[in-house]
Amino acid sequence: MSIALAFDARPLQDFCDPERVTANDFILSGFDVAGNTSNSYGVAVTSASATTLPGLNSLGLSFLRVDLAPNGFFPPHYHPRATELVVVLKGALEIGFITSNPTYNYFTKVVRKGDVFVVPVGLVHTVRNLARRDTVAMVAFNSQNPGVTNIPNAILAAEPAVNSVYLSKAFRMDVETVKHLQNIF
Amino acid sequence: MSIALAFDARPLQDFCDPERVTANDFILSGFDVAGNTSNSYGVAVTSASATTLPGLNSLGLSFLRVDLAPNGFFPPHYHPRATELVVVLKGALEIGFITSNPTYNYFTKVVRKGDVFVVPVGLVHTVRNLARRDTVAMVAFNSQNPGVTNIPNAILAAEPAVNSVYLSKAFRMDVETVKHLQNIF
Amino acid sequence: MSIALAFDARPLQDFCDPERVTANDFILSGFDVAGNTSNSYGVAVTSASATTLPGLNSLGLSFLRVDLAPNGFFPPHYHPRATELVVVLKGALEIGFITSNPTYNYFTKVVRKGDVFVVPVGLVHTVRNLARRDTVAMVAFNSQNPGVTNIPNAILAAEPAVNSVYLSKAFRMDVETVKHLQNIF
Amino acid sequence: MSIALAFDARPLQDFCDPERVTANDFILSGFDVAGNTSNSYGVAVTSASATTLPGLNSLGLSFLRVDLAPNGFFPPHYHPRATELVVVLKGALEIGFITSNPTYNYFTKVVRKGDVFVVPVGLVHTVRNLARRDTVAMVAFNSQNPGVTNIPNAILAAEPAVNSVYLSKAFRMDVETVKHLQNIF
Amino acid sequence: MSIALAFDARPLQDFCDPERVTANDFILSGFDVAGNTSNSYGVAVTSASATTLPGLNSLGLSFLRVDLAPNGFFPPHYHPRATELVVVLKGALEIGFITSNPTYNYFTKVVRKGDVFVVPVGLVHTVRNLARRDTVAMVAFNSQNPGVTNIPNAILAAEPAVNSVYLSKAFRMDVETVKHLQNIF
Amino acid sequence: MSIALAFDARPLQDFCDPERVTANDFILSGFDVAGNTSNSYGVAVTSASATTLPGLNSLGLSFLRVDLAPNGFFPPHYHPRATELVVVLKGALEIGFITSNPTYNYFTKVVRKGDVFVVPVGLVHTVRNLARRDTVAMVAFNSQNPGVTNIPNAILAAEPAVNSVYLSKAFRMDVETVKHLQNIF
Repeated sequence: MSIALAFDARPLQDFCDPERVTANDFILSGFDVAGNTSNSYGVAVTSASATTLPGLNSLGLSFLRVDLAPNGFFPPHYHPRATELVVVLKGALEIGFITSNPTYNYFTKVVRKGDVFVVPVGLVHTVRNLARRDTVAMVAFNSQNPGVTNIPNAILAAEPAVNSVYLSKAFRMDVETVKHLQNIF
Repeated sequence: MSIALAFDARPLQDFCDPERVTANDFILSGFDVAGNTSNSYGVAVTSASATTLPGLNSLGLSFLRVDLAPNGFFPPHYHPRATELVVVLKGALEIGFITSNPTYNYFTKVVRKGDVFVVPVGLVHTVRNLARRDTVAMVAFNSQNPGVTNIPNAILAAEPAVNSVYLSKAFRMDVETVKHLQNIF
Repeated sequence: MSIALAFDARPLQDFCDPERVTANDFILSGFDVAGNTSNSYGVAVTSASATTLPGLNSLGLSFLRVDLAPNGFFPPHYHPRATELVVVLKGALEIGFITSNPTYNYFTKVVRKGDVFVVPVGLVHTVRNLARRDTVAMVAFNSQNPGVTNIPNAILAAEPAVNSVYLSKAFRMDVETVKHLQNIF
Repeated sequence: MSIALAFDARPLQDFCDPERVTANDFILSGFDVAGNTSNSYGVAVTSASATTLPGLNSLGLSFLRVDLAPNGFFPPHYHPRATELVVVLKGALEIGFITSNPTYNYFTKVVRKGDVFVVPVGLVHTVRNLARRDTVAMVAFNSQNPGVTNIPNAILAAEPAVNSVYLSKAFRMDVETVKHLQNIF
Repeated sequence: MSIALAFDARPLQDFCDPERVTANDFILSGFDVAGNTSNSYGVAVTSASATTLPGLNSLGLSFLRVDLAPNGFFPPHYHPRATELVVVLKGALEIGFITSNPTYNYFTKVVRKGDVFVVPVGLVHTVRNLARRDTVAMVAFNSQNPGVTNIPNAILAAEPAVNSVYLSKAFRMDVETVKHLQNIF
Repeated sequence: MSIALAFDARPLQDFCDPERVTANDFILSGFDVAGNTSNSYGVAVTSASATTLPGLNSLGLSFLRVDLAPNGFFPPHYHPRATELVVVLKGALEIGFITSNPTYNYFTKVVRKGDVFVVPVGLVHTVRNLARRDTVAMVAFNSQNPGVTNIPNAILAAEPAVNSVYLSKAFRMDVETVKHLQNIF
């Protein structure tokens, strides 16, 4: 099944590897169970991708359940290969995305229970729980492998570290602050 | 916005019509409200597409909420332009798809609350409520306009009608039965 | 040559496997010979695909000769991955396609010797011989593997069988008739 | 319908302009009639393209009938946007294509009545009638607008003319011969 | 020419708008002239895009000259729609890109005069002048409109501003520092 | 890495083979060094492709440095899979491309130091040095493997040789001249 890892395109067959798959390859359980949000972000992600749901292989789609504890959030991030659609099942999120250069408009909304919100492919976006209780959302992507870059990790936790003087100038912070942030990330 | 109706492809911009859209174009409410299933199929469909959620335009994704009353069902149908992913939020569905010629394998599963099921692009599939109560599911498609052909409608309710002698031979039914079905559809 | 089975796309090379193919891989004989139409459909299909004509591999095109005896027909079917173009060389066909939901318009024509007819990708279509003698047509598809689903087979001959009560409701036929049809298909 | 002239891609709809087309837009007559080969090449081309058969618009396919008188030929040419499949209905052709740099292999075959031959996208190919009588072939392309560049015309009949000293060096011919050829083309 | 702004795809024609363009639409001067680097980044960008070089329209390619004064730099940024290739003509750059989640590997190199460096599509990358004098590079993108998001601008200069408490948590900085940065950007 | 040789498409990953590549796979030296133009064309090509710069694999971009001695030239040729952008760093070139049938317009320009010129995908083009000294240019292609067919080689140096009587008629030259050219190529 290695071909399906390589490109996002319509398959030339009904689905990948038709001689070996069975109906079990097209079903996955557990999206009704809250994930464990006991982490520094207060979030949990349950994923339906080609890894966990092999029938998705080569078909250009993936899916998540996300749980956010009170005050939980996803840091600013972007998906290079997919547009994202979020439907909130419980609670409320603030979701916003930022348009690219030169506008940098922040399109942001409170997305409540029963609301659907769209994040266009490749744009930085922010997600935080606004509810006093857990918020639950389902998320669809139009790629088998949307990919994700969390901005704080890319900037502050890359290995090896990005030059701190360069970051200092780029973010207009003093070098000591940059070094401190690189240490704690 | 007529270009976006024409082709399914990555846009060359952040999103369609960046000078006119606002954050409101990326949000849609109502997915927590049960649709009206008082119809002969016992189903209701609430849709997030480029029509109801303009921000989706050109981004290659759409989304549905489906409600099925007890005994509700979708007739056998296929989507020519999208793979479909279903997550059941309440109740239980039997969903199955049929592979193409020459295998015609029926891959079918009971999809319960918290299960995710995948229907590959272009295959005939069946969906029926197995629960004694309403079943609710969310459905994602990797096309802005997946399209749908309901098999009974295409065969029996086309305008003008398909030749009944031809259908009689194709389905190995007597001509009178075909004509009767064409009348009641 | 397994990659070419996986996706429909422009190759990055002149053609697939340039080190091994020879001119013989680009030619196939026999399209002037009538196929054997002694079967229940009264049709024969002679195929030029990547299987019979290896040079086609990865190039996104395939071709058929079809023979239809008097009263011969193809049951309602669709090709998920290709638009089809038919040119009638002898005889006459009625060809029609049915648009998708919600229109279900039946676009149908008598296609005589020397006529060309187009069936758009993914639509259910019907083909039957109108001539008192054999009809011969050439058919081009813009996919290496167009795929085909014959509607009667998908509905009535799937393995395992589709639930007959469900089909009874979907097609508004009594269950006994459905079971009978499932038996004879 | 101008969008469909711009890109080769799967449409987002059943077909282009669904509100205005009728069944007549999907049929074209005349492919059983020999074209007029009274020209310097001894060839005639009858074309089914989006121009002559509007239903083809946006669907990525086109079709030709070609007639070649005895000694008729197509000069060396290539199609930048389509693979070509030729089926000979009457007579015999020599068809060959030349692989790209650095191999320049000439894959050539005598293609007789009932033979199918494939010319991969973008390669220079040659076609000449081998029969003492007219040869008739049907030709399919997997693009709505395959395009064609005839090599002699591009080299010798461009407007304004290509520098003759340059051509002289490139083709290792004396300048006078080049100028003469540029005059007679 | 509005269609070409919408999608990145092979055109169905030789080039966009063949009836109106002239040879002048395919040439652009000035790439031998240093840009003005008297700005806070110490950089200048000279661009060949469909805006400045109309012949590029619909062809999926664009090009830049970049000048960097001593200590000049581009802040961390990414291009959502193109891979980038940089060739240094004079001076030396440090260029690096950061792989996506979960690896966050920083692939970095000193790119000297005569070196070529590749930045894969969609990844955050850093560029700074290492030379004591001006550095000059040429840059190619495989999109007509690669797009760019500068990370500091997206995070700190979005309009309206991103919630500072959220940013404080995401970047593990105190809220006052975030507010200060948002003010000075 | 054989998949990347097969299709031109966005990868489903950051880049090809993420587990094995290192930063060295993304850099290549030597583009500041003149190639050896001591050959019959008076040209040299230094190439950055997936072969010489493995990081380019699957990313749809390649790059060349070309050197042309005084009187150096590239024979008429075309690239089937890429648009080409040329920037002249030193000297001056005449570059022109010829539109396809039926126009055969020759769009030609003197491209001097600091000028950028675009050659649309699939069109025959000519390149010759106009300077009394060496000319140096950098060239970008939007394909990992643009391919090239040199017209004189395809027509006159194919193996086996193209029929000389056919070429004589196609190019309106006498057969002896064709045979002579086939011998000297």
